[in-house]
Amino acid sequence: MEKLAALRTLMEAHGLDAYIISSGDAHNNDRMADYWRVRSWFSGFTGSAGTVVVTPTEAGLWTDGRYFIQAEEELAGTSIDLYKMGEPGVPTYEEFLLEKLPEGGKLGFDGRTMSAAGFDLLKKKLEQKKLTYCYQEDRVGTLWANRPSLPHLPVFEHLPQFAGLSAAEKLRTVREKMKENGVTAYLVSALDDIAWLLNIRGQDVSNTPVAYAYVLITEKDAYVFIDFRKVQDISGKLMSQGFTLDTYGAVVHRLKALTGGNIYYNCNRTNVLLSEGAIPGALERVNTRDIIAFLKGIKSEAELANIRNAYIKEGVAMTKLLKWLDDSISAGNVLTEDDVAKKLQGFRKQQAHYLCDSFDTISAYGANAAQVHYHHKGTGAALEPKGFFLLDTGGQYLDGTTDTTRTVCLGALTDEMKRDFTLVLKGHIALSCAVFLKGTTGRALDMLARQPILQSCQNYNHGTGHGIGYCLGVHEGPYGINQRNDVVIEPGMVFANEPAIYKQGRYGIRTENSIVAKALCQNDDGTFYNFETLTYCPYDTRGINVEMLTQQEKDFVSTYHAKVQQVLSPMLTEDEQAWLKIRCAKI
Amino acid sequence: MEKLAALRTLMEAHGLDAYIISSGDAHNNDRMADYWRVRSWFSGFTGSAGTVVVTPTEAGLWTDGRYFIQAEEELAGTSIDLYKMGEPGVPTYEEFLLEKLPEGGKLGFDGRTMSAAGFDLLKKKLEQKKLTYCYQEDRVGTLWANRPSLPHLPVFEHLPQFAGLSAAEKLRTVREKMKENGVTAYLVSALDDIAWLLNIRGQDVSNTPVAYAYVLITEKDAYVFIDFRKVQDISGKLMSQGFTLDTYGAVVHRLKALTGGNIYYNCNRTNVLLSEGAIPGALERVNTRDIIAFLKGIKSEAELANIRNAYIKEGVAMTKLLKWLDDSISAGNVLTEDDVAKKLQGFRKQQAHYLCDSFDTISAYGANAAQVHYHHKGTGAALEPKGFFLLDTGGQYLDGTTDTTRTVCLGALTDEMKRDFTLVLKGHIALSCAVFLKGTTGRALDMLARQPILQSCQNYNHGTGHGIGYCLGVHEGPYGINQRNDVVIEPGMVFANEPAIYKQGRYGIRTENSIVAKALCQNDDGTFYNFETLTYCPYDTRGINVEMLTQQEKDFVSTYHAKVQQVLSPMLTEDEQAWLKIRCAKI
Repeated sequence: MEKLAALRTLMEAHGLDAYIISSGDAHNNDRMADYWRVRSWFSGFTGSAGTVVVTPTEAGLWTDGRYFIQAEEELAGTSIDLYKMGEPGVPTYEEFLLEKLPEGGKLGFDGRTMSAAGFDLLKKKLEQKKLTYCYQEDRVGTLWANRPSLPHLPVFEHLPQFAGLSAAEKLRTVREKMKENGVTAYLVSALDDIAWLLNIRGQDVSNTPVAYAYVLITEKDAYVFIDFRKVQDISGKLMSQGFTLDTYGAVVHRLKALTGGNIYYNCNRTNVLLSEGAIPGALERVNTRDIIAFLKGIKSEAELANIRNAYIKEGVAMTKLLKWLDDSISAGNVLTEDDVAKKLQGFRKQQAHYLCDSFDTISAYGANAAQVHYHHKGTGAALEPKGFFLLDTGGQYLDGTTDTTRTVCLGALTDEMKRDFTLVLKGHIALSCAVFLKGTTGRALDMLARQPILQSCQNYNHGTGHGIGYCLGVHEGPYGINQRNDVVIEPGMVFANEPAIYKQGRYGIRTENSIVAKALCQNDDGTFYNFETLTYCPYDTRGINVEMLTQQEKDFVSTYHAKVQQVLSPMLTEDEQAWLKIRCAKI
Repeated sequence: MEKLAALRTLMEAHGLDAYIISSGDAHNNDRMADYWRVRSWFSGFTGSAGTVVVTPTEAGLWTDGRYFIQAEEELAGTSIDLYKMGEPGVPTYEEFLLEKLPEGGKLGFDGRTMSAAGFDLLKKKLEQKKLTYCYQEDRVGTLWANRPSLPHLPVFEHLPQFAGLSAAEKLRTVREKMKENGVTAYLVSALDDIAWLLNIRGQDVSNTPVAYAYVLITEKDAYVFIDFRKVQDISGKLMSQGFTLDTYGAVVHRLKALTGGNIYYNCNRTNVLLSEGAIPGALERVNTRDIIAFLKGIKSEAELANIRNAYIKEGVAMTKLLKWLDDSISAGNVLTEDDVAKKLQGFRKQQAHYLCDSFDTISAYGANAAQVHYHHKGTGAALEPKGFFLLDTGGQYLDGTTDTTRTVCLGALTDEMKRDFTLVLKGHIALSCAVFLKGTTGRALDMLARQPILQSCQNYNHGTGHGIGYCLGVHEGPYGINQRNDVVIEPGMVFANEPAIYKQGRYGIRTENSIVAKALCQNDDGTFYNFETLTYCPYDTRGINVEMLTQQEKDFVSTYHAKVQQVLSPMLTEDEQAWLKIRCAKI
């Protein structure tokens, strides 16, 4: 394999005993521009998660269970070995390095593609080898002849009616929080944090409207480091809000020039080239709760008013789609998974302020839905008038980011299928209706959604609810509802609520609404919160075994459906209204 | 105040700038012998939790909300100020010391009454003062003229039919675990750990059959440090099991003599005089999961068979009591809280292998039950034929430790009372029926019991379930079901299940069974556990608003009651059987 030989020549020339090729971009962003797909280019493996490690005599790719089959196919003939993470007896790549590297050896990687936190962990695991880490050069990048350039499409202003606060107001609040925490310099690396702060949205990556940039805030200055081609239209606006523009690459020099005071950066989103290679070693690092992540995560009343509206529009698109799907199946039309995804996007495009989908729609028929992260290839499978069809989809609107999953009953269901559908619904309802005290964390609530499913000795191997951004990431942290999340839930945080059951080779069921935490009441026992459901979209009651529901659960479904019908009907055709009325009938 | 003046004279003589008087004994045991009640003797404050701090010019007692009123009364005239912990603006005693102590000052306390973990925390909080800690002398103790002596009543063997494994077998297992964890010396300070290991039970403290002792296990030796007067009858037995006896005080010298290897001790149960004053500083401290605490906490099948039997006996005593109570109330007899507690103890004494109560019975009528830790004084309140009566009680049997709470409906109830009673029952049932995966922690399950109560914007300000020992502490850790407990639940761990609602000045409701975790099934989704209910005692169905229960909850109650009736009836009189039949009627 030529690339491997070329890298080994480079490694030898620079005295490197091993080289790591990671999957991320310089901001540890969820999505990334093609420029950053070095690992895919090098190894041929195109999955989203995977790490390549090369030594003079060996080369390996480490990836997880989702990608074992794909990786085997894509690595064929590359002389890169596949290491199946989590399988018994398979070493982690750190363990592999620990075995292969000589004491006092040199380990290379592109410092832009590893987070400061990840680097700390790596150093700890390889401590005993007393290694030198060479992170300044992107060795593989120099081999990539036709590498795509970093994107430079223009960003646009997230207008006041959507953004609520002005960028100047947000900057003021950030500086107040910095002061509270004794922070004198704040490096913002997370692209969604930057988009929120500057009230801009970009086009650099798919599905999430962000742009590659850095921000450095001090008591006096607020630098935005960004390709000038992107901000031609709004540079005046940004400057008027108190920001100074500089080139994307200038962040390194500006950080190097910092003297006195201290700095805060999110070590999960800031790369090693900045944390180790640019920020002076003598500058004190402040360990505090992320500042913008929480300002952004707690949606304001103005933002929530917009979000509610976005979810109504999404509900209209979803209802039109579900009605069309029902009609098509009844008429005996042959539909593929791709047909449904495309049709839905069509309905979504008719809605005001639609930008793009918030992720590639998961349109999964039958056994395909048992794969949590299924994405159809080409047309995908053909739908048949029986069993379940799972649709997990969302849109980016200027006034909100949506994420909805419905499992549609296309025809005959077994008792087991109905039981599982109902168990998932029970879990989903339990979380929707949860009441909890101020101070409660996401991990404390996860069990409510999971318990009805556990009762049948089944489980879903993912969290119950990720955080959701506002015209930003459909996965937004650090808050979330899962078994490990220790972030305290605050009113204004928006979550997915998506319990599920997966039967390998048979079917998958997932039911997902978005919910927002809100204040409920206050008394001697404490301050109580609950959730408001944002999503307007009928559940498929044909999948419910009504006998398994409590009266409270039946009431929840009926009340929800009455509201869905009431809110959406004015935006639907008469035919669609009639269909929705039937779908929303009291159970 | 003479004592205060005397202590200050001593402090001056030894150059101490402050002196701390803690509440604990040398083993951080839940209960303690009178010898250890130094803080009570010195301050006059008799509550279970409280710390006195004395400086040359000030003296303060720190205690929590349970004891504010009592402390105010008992401290009157002592010139010791009351510091109400948790109240706004009230400093912690560490903050107080931080303010009052001079840099480089000397802080004294009896090193036996502070745990190694507590000392580490204290040192960290006072770090900036660069203090010298004088923990070798019990200064207050020297002032206490008629101090009770340490108890020396005999211990007795926990016979093989109760203990299951022999002490020699347990010692072998402990040594295997030590080897697994690379531990060469293991100091056991926890009295219940020692009782479990040696298969002995003692009489040194109330309610828990333990004896003051230490154990030191090395690869070759196993020393038991104990007052010889306690073990005259069973010293031969202990020696035959591989143990060497030495005096209680000899532990210090034996620890000082340790050279080479390392040591493990539970830093929450081991005091500073040993951790700092006896164990050589150069000896490596091993940081591992507690060894005996988990061997003891995971009850064996033999122990569980005994425990099930103990809970049947307890159920007989409870049923006889509840029937007698019903009859007495119907007959118009005037009963006091103390009458009920005494009567219950009488029924319990009739049961085989009864030792003592596992805690002072909480017999609380009406508003008294709203105090979580209520204990009647004298006869206590008189019961009236209306409202709730709460009975929280347990016994120590050679074959098990029990803990049961029932809220009894003595007469008319309001709708609100019935609602609250039913909410508590719903929470209790939810935890009883929980199914959970291997790896689940206590904190993940707490919300299941709490959620029905939170739904009404109410909460109980304590955990849902402490761990329970085996003819040992009715509170046994480190496992438990509460919002902070991170210990993974394993089959064989016994828990309380006691959600509650407290209405200050009006009533308190608590419903408590003991439950044991057990394996349920195993499949592709994982290994599933659930709980078996150990307690046999009818719920008072007169308090239930049946309409609030789901069919599943009604079935749980009816199935439970059918089992209670079936199991207990053979041990009851005909009258009692008839009463139980009514109480256990299907709902």
